[in-house]
Amino acid sequence: MDTPIPIIGATGALGFGLALRLGRAGVPVIIGSRDAGRAEEAAAKAAALVPEGTFTGAQNADAARAGELVILSVPFRNQSENLTNLKGALTAGQILVDATVPLAAAVSGKATRTLGVWQGSAAQQAQEMVPEGVTVLSAFHTVSASLLSDLDHKLDEDVLICGDRRADKERLAALVTRIEGLRPVDCGPLELARIVEQLTPLIISINVRHKARAGIRITGLDATHE
Amino acid sequence: MDTPIPIIGATGALGFGLALRLGRAGVPVIIGSRDAGRAEEAAAKAAALVPEGTFTGAQNADAARAGELVILSVPFRNQSENLTNLKGALTAGQILVDATVPLAAAVSGKATRTLGVWQGSAAQQAQEMVPEGVTVLSAFHTVSASLLSDLDHKLDEDVLICGDRRADKERLAALVTRIEGLRPVDCGPLELARIVEQLTPLIISINVRHKARAGIRITGLDATHE
Repeated sequence: MDTPIPIIGATGALGFGLALRLGRAGVPVIIGSRDAGRAEEAAAKAAALVPEGTFTGAQNADAARAGELVILSVPFRNQSENLTNLKGALTAGQILVDATVPLAAAVSGKATRTLGVWQGSAAQQAQEMVPEGVTVLSAFHTVSASLLSDLDHKLDEDVLICGDRRADKERLAALVTRIEGLRPVDCGPLELARIVEQLTPLIISINVRHKARAGIRITGLDATHE
Repeated sequence: MDTPIPIIGATGALGFGLALRLGRAGVPVIIGSRDAGRAEEAAAKAAALVPEGTFTGAQNADAARAGELVILSVPFRNQSENLTNLKGALTAGQILVDATVPLAAAVSGKATRTLGVWQGSAAQQAQEMVPEGVTVLSAFHTVSASLLSDLDHKLDEDVLICGDRRADKERLAALVTRIEGLRPVDCGPLELARIVEQLTPLIISINVRHKARAGIRITGLDATHE
């Protein structure tokens, strides 16, 4: 039996899309939200869309306690507040996968621009804020929320992963591989999140211009390096 | 007959690789270098590798005068100096395609880190420095110099293009399309170069980890949007 994957902010578009895809892959998902009622509603909605999946709803802090690998999928505007609220819930040994993007939209700027984050990136801000012994990975910035939720769409793109510990990245890579059509690519240490987080506004700009739902594929990696 | 494409700094790895591929595609190339003798040597070397190509060597300023679309492929350390030297050579109506990446390696830092450029990106610095009426595009940051020069390698990746004028981007896109296996992708206005220039250190980090010569492919663009 798989350990469940809590997704903090899974009532949002990206988190919900990831929940659906993981659920369909046979991974039990705990849908976290600020409000337990909304979380349960979203879990019921996910179960209706993916009847073979296992979804439960929980308030964010309770969700965060329930798995060793926790996905944080919240708007940048709320990231810091969420991390403060999770301080009593996360414990040493857990992995927090941060999907936050510091879009300038957080301060009513453009979605094709970003804010400078003092620590270098949203993921590095997360690493500074989590309890000691919790390690942060950065991932899921280039995967379209709408394509994840469009369950008829055949995914065919990469998930770029940054983090300082190889074993943690391998743990996340194994999870990503469960989702058909997604390939994990190790991009280096967590500080590279400074670059990878910028790919969201790049993709937004491409989407606007090409009326597309674009993603990223790294070329030149043969099968043995995937 | 095609107009020739001057490449400033074409004795460097990326510029030389582009010269070879353009030459093979039937585009006459003017190989620019600080030193006319070195430029002529490189042109002879290119002609030996691509006998069907047309290569001439010229001092950078002379090269820049000889075509309507000029590629600037120099290390960040020398970009500003080169642009100063080109002030008397470039004239209104020309397009300058900047391939510069502000790698921290320019100041003996890491090649997986970049320097902050006051104007936002190296391409925006170029736009500030060129004579009035010259427009700057940003491109060629994600294509491996070594794969370009490896003429047996079948390219299969994208060239991300940023710029403020659609017609100029279409002009460059038509040139890129001449090179087999490269697809141009319009990424938006020149300010997006701030993001696209960061893809070079990302790819360097991926290359180190995966012992690869990686590139980028944007997924989700159907044929009508290429």
